[in-house]
Amino acid sequence: MKKIFLLIAIVINLLVADNILLEKAQKANLLPIPSSTSELLKLIDEPQNPITDAKIELGKKLFFDPRLSKSNLISCNTCHNLGLAGVDGVSTAIGDNWQANPQHLNSPTVYNSVFLTFQFWDGRSPHLADQAKGPLTAPFEMASKPEDLAKKISSIKGYQELFDQTYGQNTQITFELIADTIAIFEKTLVTPSKFDKFLEGDMDILSEKEKKGLHTFIDKRCVSCHNGVALGGMMKYFVMKNFTYKDIGSFSGNDNFLVKVPTLRNISKTAPYFHNGSVWSLNEAVLEMARIQLKLKITDEEAQSIVDFLKSLDGDMPNITYPTLPY
Amino acid sequence: MKKIFLLIAIVINLLVADNILLEKAQKANLLPIPSSTSELLKLIDEPQNPITDAKIELGKKLFFDPRLSKSNLISCNTCHNLGLAGVDGVSTAIGDNWQANPQHLNSPTVYNSVFLTFQFWDGRSPHLADQAKGPLTAPFEMASKPEDLAKKISSIKGYQELFDQTYGQNTQITFELIADTIAIFEKTLVTPSKFDKFLEGDMDILSEKEKKGLHTFIDKRCVSCHNGVALGGMMKYFVMKNFTYKDIGSFSGNDNFLVKVPTLRNISKTAPYFHNGSVWSLNEAVLEMARIQLKLKITDEEAQSIVDFLKSLDGDMPNITYPTLPY
Repeated sequence: MKKIFLLIAIVINLLVADNILLEKAQKANLLPIPSSTSELLKLIDEPQNPITDAKIELGKKLFFDPRLSKSNLISCNTCHNLGLAGVDGVSTAIGDNWQANPQHLNSPTVYNSVFLTFQFWDGRSPHLADQAKGPLTAPFEMASKPEDLAKKISSIKGYQELFDQTYGQNTQITFELIADTIAIFEKTLVTPSKFDKFLEGDMDILSEKEKKGLHTFIDKRCVSCHNGVALGGMMKYFVMKNFTYKDIGSFSGNDNFLVKVPTLRNISKTAPYFHNGSVWSLNEAVLEMARIQLKLKITDEEAQSIVDFLKSLDGDMPNITYPTLPY
Repeated sequence: MKKIFLLIAIVINLLVADNILLEKAQKANLLPIPSSTSELLKLIDEPQNPITDAKIELGKKLFFDPRLSKSNLISCNTCHNLGLAGVDGVSTAIGDNWQANPQHLNSPTVYNSVFLTFQFWDGRSPHLADQAKGPLTAPFEMASKPEDLAKKISSIKGYQELFDQTYGQNTQITFELIADTIAIFEKTLVTPSKFDKFLEGDMDILSEKEKKGLHTFIDKRCVSCHNGVALGGMMKYFVMKNFTYKDIGSFSGNDNFLVKVPTLRNISKTAPYFHNGSVWSLNEAVLEMARIQLKLKITDEEAQSIVDFLKSLDGDMPNITYPTLPY
């Protein structure tokens, strides 16, 4: 009988502990990717350009089409490879004519970027459709001229037909419309993980190791910057000046030396880390962030524990049929 | 009553005409991509490395993985883009460090390449698995060193697991095995078209215009080189010396100034044409081939008629799920 009481006490204790952790996470503004489609749409859909299946499909074609670049060789997917967690896996983005990004900037993941309040490493863009215009035209990325690109895409009969089907007869294919349509596809690139199920109340889904890591992640105040649905990207910036690896490249943040907080979703798969891709080990990246952002010396074990939690953010990648491109 | 007889006579006449055309095509050794899977397997499967679903899936991952290149930025799909009929749509292949192919060679399509008896523009390779080793290691293409590549892929835990699942426990990932596996995936890249249905007896599937074009294609002896399942690639070469555009690039064929006859499947989508990608118009390409290969001056109408037929070779592209790559 005593044993049974003990067992019940342990179970209750565990349940209470789980509830405390969930409340802690919610208080820290860690938000799930909603499992319900209608709830998700509330987060990502916008009345001025509503998501439709036709737009998603057309946007996917544009995303994968290297003809959007001046050379016809570089697509959005080149740097934001959907098979590689939405990144290119190299320190510095390489673009038109094999030019490295002049500020040595690393390509951020496109997955879950819809949840970011600000885009680009300096956070200068508020919106995916606006963001898409950057790489399309940057001379060291896809290097297209807006008018030339609109003309080129209009000259491909199959694209004109698809734009007409999507937006109505005789749609004029503009640079803006191309970027808007790419953004619609990108909005669908969300990767729910078991952490989302935890936040929605399925508390057994995380292992004890991951729960311990989540405690550490919150207790060490990583959540002061890494919060929201993407665990980052919410217009919280981090200060550049104490950054160990700042000498790589000329980028020094925005006018106030601030850099966008990146998302932590799929972080175990998006090495190398930081705006200049200077660090390949996630543990090392955690230690550096604790040191310069939180002014904390955390132990290797604590860093490892945080990494254990971060791996629970590895999400389910959407199933993407590789598009046959129009002619 | 007379009218009915007349109608019957016309119908019989058409049926006879269709039968004559089909026989003509068969005599010219124009062969279908078999609609039956077992018949297709007889053509593409080999006992020393039989096709399995696991090999196809692993080969697909390797095909799409830019980490197979020295730079980690170029995949097989970069030049043989499966969304662009298996080509890159530029005159000269561009590879590592943005180097153009030194001989100005154009990327041939990977679709239906399993049906070619000889690979590469000079036909030096007899087999897809052998062919794959070329671009992987050419310093101006993917620029990998065989041993380095085998080590790199072995170091990716997820790949080791997949190779073990596919080939058995503790499989040693060699450069050869990587190429063999890519080739298995490439073998599945076949694109049956309505011309295949015609060859299998569905004679109504071609329009009158396409049938007329097929007559012209055979009567003008295009079939003397463009025959077999791929309508090309059967170790019939064409002589370089009278080629109008030979000054583009240094390539002059094999030791005997011969060049592989390319496949005509999906030819309407694989511009620019010829080994040096010198011609963008299919009609122009047909006229040039008639002039230098067949010593014929054909009319623009005849060239257009041949092009009408060639469009019936536009095939159904396989449905390809974009792979999530291993880590």
